[in-house]
Amino acid sequence: MSFNQFGTLLSLTTFGESHGPCIGGVLDGLPPNIRIDMNTVQSALNTRKPREKGMSPEKENDTVTVISGLMNNITTGAPLAFTIPNQDAKPSAYQNTENIIRPGHANATYQNKYKHTHQQGGGRASARETAIRVAAGAICQHLLDQFDTRVFAYLDSMGPITQTIPWHQVNPEHIKKSEFFCPDHDVFLKMQGHLDQLQHKGDSCGGIVRFVVLNPPNGLGEPIYQKMEAKLAHGMMSIPASKGFEIGQGFASSKMLGSEHNDQILNTKGQGKHNHAGGILGGISNGDPIWGSVAFKPPSSIRIEQKTLDFNGKSTMLSFDRPHRHDPCVAIRAVPVVKAMCQLVLCDLILCHQSRNLHDPNAQSEQT
Amino acid sequence: MSFNQFGTLLSLTTFGESHGPCIGGVLDGLPPNIRIDMNTVQSALNTRKPREKGMSPEKENDTVTVISGLMNNITTGAPLAFTIPNQDAKPSAYQNTENIIRPGHANATYQNKYKHTHQQGGGRASARETAIRVAAGAICQHLLDQFDTRVFAYLDSMGPITQTIPWHQVNPEHIKKSEFFCPDHDVFLKMQGHLDQLQHKGDSCGGIVRFVVLNPPNGLGEPIYQKMEAKLAHGMMSIPASKGFEIGQGFASSKMLGSEHNDQILNTKGQGKHNHAGGILGGISNGDPIWGSVAFKPPSSIRIEQKTLDFNGKSTMLSFDRPHRHDPCVAIRAVPVVKAMCQLVLCDLILCHQSRNLHDPNAQSEQT
Amino acid sequence: MSFNQFGTLLSLTTFGESHGPCIGGVLDGLPPNIRIDMNTVQSALNTRKPREKGMSPEKENDTVTVISGLMNNITTGAPLAFTIPNQDAKPSAYQNTENIIRPGHANATYQNKYKHTHQQGGGRASARETAIRVAAGAICQHLLDQFDTRVFAYLDSMGPITQTIPWHQVNPEHIKKSEFFCPDHDVFLKMQGHLDQLQHKGDSCGGIVRFVVLNPPNGLGEPIYQKMEAKLAHGMMSIPASKGFEIGQGFASSKMLGSEHNDQILNTKGQGKHNHAGGILGGISNGDPIWGSVAFKPPSSIRIEQKTLDFNGKSTMLSFDRPHRHDPCVAIRAVPVVKAMCQLVLCDLILCHQSRNLHDPNAQSEQT
Amino acid sequence: MSFNQFGTLLSLTTFGESHGPCIGGVLDGLPPNIRIDMNTVQSALNTRKPREKGMSPEKENDTVTVISGLMNNITTGAPLAFTIPNQDAKPSAYQNTENIIRPGHANATYQNKYKHTHQQGGGRASARETAIRVAAGAICQHLLDQFDTRVFAYLDSMGPITQTIPWHQVNPEHIKKSEFFCPDHDVFLKMQGHLDQLQHKGDSCGGIVRFVVLNPPNGLGEPIYQKMEAKLAHGMMSIPASKGFEIGQGFASSKMLGSEHNDQILNTKGQGKHNHAGGILGGISNGDPIWGSVAFKPPSSIRIEQKTLDFNGKSTMLSFDRPHRHDPCVAIRAVPVVKAMCQLVLCDLILCHQSRNLHDPNAQSEQT
Repeated sequence: MSFNQFGTLLSLTTFGESHGPCIGGVLDGLPPNIRIDMNTVQSALNTRKPREKGMSPEKENDTVTVISGLMNNITTGAPLAFTIPNQDAKPSAYQNTENIIRPGHANATYQNKYKHTHQQGGGRASARETAIRVAAGAICQHLLDQFDTRVFAYLDSMGPITQTIPWHQVNPEHIKKSEFFCPDHDVFLKMQGHLDQLQHKGDSCGGIVRFVVLNPPNGLGEPIYQKMEAKLAHGMMSIPASKGFEIGQGFASSKMLGSEHNDQILNTKGQGKHNHAGGILGGISNGDPIWGSVAFKPPSSIRIEQKTLDFNGKSTMLSFDRPHRHDPCVAIRAVPVVKAMCQLVLCDLILCHQSRNLHDPNAQSEQT
Repeated sequence: MSFNQFGTLLSLTTFGESHGPCIGGVLDGLPPNIRIDMNTVQSALNTRKPREKGMSPEKENDTVTVISGLMNNITTGAPLAFTIPNQDAKPSAYQNTENIIRPGHANATYQNKYKHTHQQGGGRASARETAIRVAAGAICQHLLDQFDTRVFAYLDSMGPITQTIPWHQVNPEHIKKSEFFCPDHDVFLKMQGHLDQLQHKGDSCGGIVRFVVLNPPNGLGEPIYQKMEAKLAHGMMSIPASKGFEIGQGFASSKMLGSEHNDQILNTKGQGKHNHAGGILGGISNGDPIWGSVAFKPPSSIRIEQKTLDFNGKSTMLSFDRPHRHDPCVAIRAVPVVKAMCQLVLCDLILCHQSRNLHDPNAQSEQT
Repeated sequence: MSFNQFGTLLSLTTFGESHGPCIGGVLDGLPPNIRIDMNTVQSALNTRKPREKGMSPEKENDTVTVISGLMNNITTGAPLAFTIPNQDAKPSAYQNTENIIRPGHANATYQNKYKHTHQQGGGRASARETAIRVAAGAICQHLLDQFDTRVFAYLDSMGPITQTIPWHQVNPEHIKKSEFFCPDHDVFLKMQGHLDQLQHKGDSCGGIVRFVVLNPPNGLGEPIYQKMEAKLAHGMMSIPASKGFEIGQGFASSKMLGSEHNDQILNTKGQGKHNHAGGILGGISNGDPIWGSVAFKPPSSIRIEQKTLDFNGKSTMLSFDRPHRHDPCVAIRAVPVVKAMCQLVLCDLILCHQSRNLHDPNAQSEQT
Repeated sequence: MSFNQFGTLLSLTTFGESHGPCIGGVLDGLPPNIRIDMNTVQSALNTRKPREKGMSPEKENDTVTVISGLMNNITTGAPLAFTIPNQDAKPSAYQNTENIIRPGHANATYQNKYKHTHQQGGGRASARETAIRVAAGAICQHLLDQFDTRVFAYLDSMGPITQTIPWHQVNPEHIKKSEFFCPDHDVFLKMQGHLDQLQHKGDSCGGIVRFVVLNPPNGLGEPIYQKMEAKLAHGMMSIPASKGFEIGQGFASSKMLGSEHNDQILNTKGQGKHNHAGGILGGISNGDPIWGSVAFKPPSSIRIEQKTLDFNGKSTMLSFDRPHRHDPCVAIRAVPVVKAMCQLVLCDLILCHQSRNLHDPNAQSEQT
C-alpha cells in the first residue's frame, strides 16, 4: 500500500515534486498485449497545458517518456513507468514567501504535519502531479477502446457563468476546439471576459467540471465499498482544489420526488429514459452513460494583497508579483484531470469485475 | 483486500444480507487498551431505528453483540467482531416483485452482474448494512474521545425544505432531541407535514445531511490519494442512495472569488476565520472544524404504481402495498450513518498519521 | 487492509479468540454461482479434530455455520461469513499460569506489545484460529474443482521419524485413512510409539508437513511480489509454530548442480521430467504439480517442569497438570491447515490472473 | 495495490526491465526528517556488483539517482523515487535463444502467462530488479539506525561447502571483507576452488544465505497475517531463485524436543538463552536477535549443452557461449538482497506497530 497510489487492481503510483528534476508515475495492472499509441498520450498531456493568456504562463514542455512496461509499444504486463521532466523550475519565485502562511493554501498544514522546512512550489501539494494522471488516463483509454467506451469532460461553469447545454447533447468535438473546454462558444466568450476582469483585479474564481462516459461496460462496481460512485468520488476529491462531487443529478436529486427521479426502465439491464442516477444503480453500472460533476474552489494564489501570519505567528502581508505562475481559474486545467480519473476508475473496475467473472474453466485450461 | 471493507489501517469489513440470520462487522486496527462503553454503541444504533410514523415500520431489535476483541470491555488489539440479528425478516414481502425490474433500484444491476436468481430484500444492496457502520462508528468514537474530538450530523434539508442555522451555530443537543435530526424545531414541523403529504401520495423525497467534526486533531490526511476529503467522499458515496458530497463550501465555492474564499489566517496551524475550506487544506486537517454535506436521492421504493419491465423484458406494473417497509425520506436515517463514516475516517487517519510520526526511538526503546 | 486478513482478491478475514463465544471468518471474493457442499466443509473441519489419544483432549464440536453469502448453498458474490462456536472454553485451566512467562510461547511478546492483562488460552495466538482457515480452504476447493485441481498434504516426518514415499507416489487415500495423515502405515506405527513415549515423559516434538497440488492451472502467480511461492510462504509461515518453508527441492536444491536441478522440458508449458522446482518457474505455475514442505517446531506447552520468570521478573517454575489441552506434536493437526493455505493461495491467484486475462470484449459486451 | 509492490505501510514499488533504459523504485512511507546519506546507499549497491572473476562479467555502473522525496538529503514524507540506469544492455546476447524454452528458467511460464513475444534478458524475471531492493534497504537502514538496529547477511553455504561459525559468533566485519560474503576465510578459499571447477565445467551450484538482525525493536509483527516471520518469508521467497526459508532453527526445529527448543527465559520481554526461535514468538519480535536462512537453487543458465524444446514444441539443444553474463552461484549476489528484505520488513513493521501504539493524545494535541 502506498498513500501515493490510486486504484485497486489497476494502480497508479505517482512521485515527484513540482520543482524537482521530474515527476513520474508507475501504472501497474494493465493487461499484456495492448498496443499503446504514445502520440495520443502526449496529445492528452498537451490538453492540460496552459493554452490561453488567462492561464498560468509556466511553459513546461510536458513530454512523457515511458521507461518500462512497453515493448514495441505493446504492454508486457510489467509495470508501465513514465516520467515528465520539469524544465521550468524557478525555486527563486517562491523564496520571498516561503516563511509566510498562504491563505487557502496547504503550506501551513504540510508544515505542521511534516515539520520540515518549507518546500518550494508546493511540493506534493502542487497541481503539477496531475499531469501524471492525465498521461495514465490516456494510456488506460487504450483498454477502454476495446469496449468502445469513450470519456469526455468539460467546463460546465466558471464562477457565476454556466453553460446550459444538457450533458447528453454536448458535442465532444466542440469541447476539443474550445480553449476552456467549454462546449458552448458563446458562453466561452463570456467566460473569457470574466477571466480578463479577474486577471485585471488580481483575483481568481472557481468552476464546475462535468464528466460523461459513453457506452461503459455494465456490471462495473463492487458492493459495498468499491461502488463505482465511491471510487469516482475518491478519485475526484483527490484532485487539488476539488471541493464537491456529484453523480447523476447529485444535489439536485435531493430536491426531487421518487416518482420523478425513478427512471422508466427500457431494457433488462435496467437502463432508463432519463438516467437521473448517472448510469449507476447500487454502485454498479447499468451501461447507461455515466455522468457527474466536480466543483473546484477558486485558486488561493491571488495577486490581491492579503493579511496573514508568518510561521512565527507575526502579522504580515502576502502578495505575488506578476506575471505569476498561477491560474485564475484552476477548473479549466482540471478538465483533462477529471477525465483521466474517470478513465482510471473504469479500467480498475473492469479488472475487478473480470477477476470474479471466470471464463469457462475448461475453455481456459485448453487456452492456458 | 476485501471489496466489503472500508479503511486503510482501521478497517471495517461487513457481511450479512438484510434477510439472513444476522448482519455483522469486523473492526480491525483499534489500538489495545481502549475501554469501550457498549451502552453508547447500542445508543448510537438506536438512533438509526425508525422513530416516527413517517419512517419504515420494520421493527428490528437492532441489538449489537460483540463476539471478539474485547476483554472486560477493553480492546485487546484483536479484531473486534460483532453481529446484529435480523429478527423481522419477511421474505414473503418481496416475493411478488422479485422478477420485476424496480425503477431506481439495484436489482437489475445486481442481477446482470452476479447472474443469480433474485435476492430478497435487496441483499447486500440493502441499507440495513449501514447499521454495522453506525455501531463501528460509535466504537471508534472512544478513540476520538481521547482527542476530545466530537462528531455530529444533522438533516439540513428534506426535499424543498431547508433549515437555515449555519453549521457553526447548530446545537448538537437540539439534533438529539429531534425525530428527524433537524436542529430547528420549526423546520422539523414543516418537514413532518411534507412527509405526511408524501406518505399520503405514496411518493418519496430526497434530502441533504450535514456533518461537523469539532476539535479534530490536525495533521490528519495523507497526500496524495489518502487526502481526508477523498476518504470522506469515498465513505459517504458508499452509503446507499447518496448522490453528492461536499467539503466546506463545496459547490458554492465554485461561485466564490479567491479573495472571498481564502481565509484570514488566525494562527500558525493555518486555522482561519471563516473556514470555507471545511477544515482541510491540501488534504490535511488544520484543526479547524471539518464540515460538509451529503446529498441523498429520494428512495426508489414508492407506493405509486410504476410502469416497468420484468426480467424477461415484458412490460408490467410495479406497486407496493402498504404498510410498506420503506422510508419516504432515507436521508433521515442516513444521518447517523454519515456521522459514523466521519468517525471511521478520522480514526483511520489518526492511525495513518501516527504510523509515520515516530516516537523518540530512545524513549520507545525504554518503553518497549 | 486488515492485519487479520489473508489474500489479495480472495481474502479471508478471521476473528475470535480461543476462549470467547466463537471464532469466525469472512471469505470475500468468491465468484457468484458456485454451489458449495457444506458437508465437505464440515468434513474438512473434522479432519482437524484431535482423532487420537496422543492429541489434545479438548473436544470442541467444531461445527461451522454459514451466516451470509450463500443462497440455497450457492455463492451470491457477497462475503461468505461463518462461525464456529467455542464449546469447551475453560478459562480456569489457565488461571494459575497467566502471570508466568511461558518459554517458547507468545504470552510475553503479546504482553509487551499490547500491554494488556494476560489473555487466557492464548487469545489470537491460539492455534484454534486455524480451524477457520480449514473451513475457508474447503470452501475454496469448490472453485478449484472447476479446474480439476486437487490439493493434499501429509505428515512427512515427526521428530526423527521420516516417511520415505516420494511426493509423486503418495496415495491421497492412504493419508485420509491415517490418524496422523501419514501415507505409510508402518511409519505411522513408529510415530505412534514415539508419541506415546513423549506423552509419558511430558515432552513434545516437531514435524514436517508436505503439500502437493495436482493439476494446478498454469499461469498463476504475479511477478514480482505476488509470486506463487512468496504467497505460499507467507501463508504457511502465518500458521502457528511453523518455522520453515520449502518449495520443490527447497534447501536440498542448494546442494544441487544446475545441470542436475534444471529439468528436461517435456512440453511448451515448460513442464519437466523431475519437477525439482515444485511446479513454479519465475513465480508462475507451469501446470506441473506444486509441492513443498513446512516445518513445525515442537509445541512449547510441555508437562516437564520448566524454570522461568513471572511478569514481575521473579524466578518461578512452570508446569501443566494432565490432562493438558495441548498436542505433543502440533504438526499432525497442522496438516489440514497447510492444505487449506494452499487452497486459499491458489484461488486468490486464479482471481489475480483472471483479472488481467480479459475476455474478448466483444463477446463480453454481448454477454453482459 | 500493485503486484510489483512490497510492504504494507512502507512500500517499495519497483519497475523496469533488465534491458530497458533503467530500473527504478518508489519507496513510500518513510517518515519525514530522516537524513539519508546517499553514499551509504551507493556503497550498499556496490556490494551487489560482481566482485570476482567467478561472477557475472556484466559491468553495470549501478549508480543510484534519487529523483524525488529528498530535500537537502532529508526525507520530506513524499515518495522517494530513484532509478539505476542500465548501461550494459546487450539485447543481441539473447537473440539466438529467444525462441527456445530454457530449462529451469521462467521464459516458458512468462510466455504462457503473458502471451507476448519473448522478452530479452528475462524482463521482470531478471535478478537485476533486486538492485532496487538493495538501494531501498540501505535507505531504510537510516530509520533502523534510530533504533540502533543492525542487519547483516552472509553466505552460509555454497553447494556442498558449509561454513561453521554459529550465527551469534559471526563478525560482520569479516563478511564485508569477503568477496563471497563468507565469514570464514578458509571456507571462502574452498568455495573459490569449488566455483573455479564449476566455471570450468560450465555448471552452476546453489547456496544458503543467513540473515541476522541485532538489537531489533521488540513488539514488531502483527498477528495473524502480518507476523514477522510471514512477512520475512514473503519477502525472501520473492527473490529470484530462492527455494526455502527458515526462521531460527527452521527445519532443524522439527527434529527437536519441546524441552530442548523452549528457551530459558532471561527477562520479561521473553528473551531467552539460546534463541532457537529466531527472536520471534507468536509472530512478534521479543528483542532477541532475529535470524534465519534462505536457500537458493543453482542458476539455470549453464554453459553445458541441454536438450530442450523450442516454443513450437520442436526438440533442440541450448547452450550459451562464454563469456556468459550469468553467475555460477547466484547465492553470493543474493546476500545483499536478503539483507535488504530484512531492512524493508523491519521498517514496515515499525510503522505498523507505531500506528496503533498511540502517543499520549494530550501530549500530541499540544505538539501538533
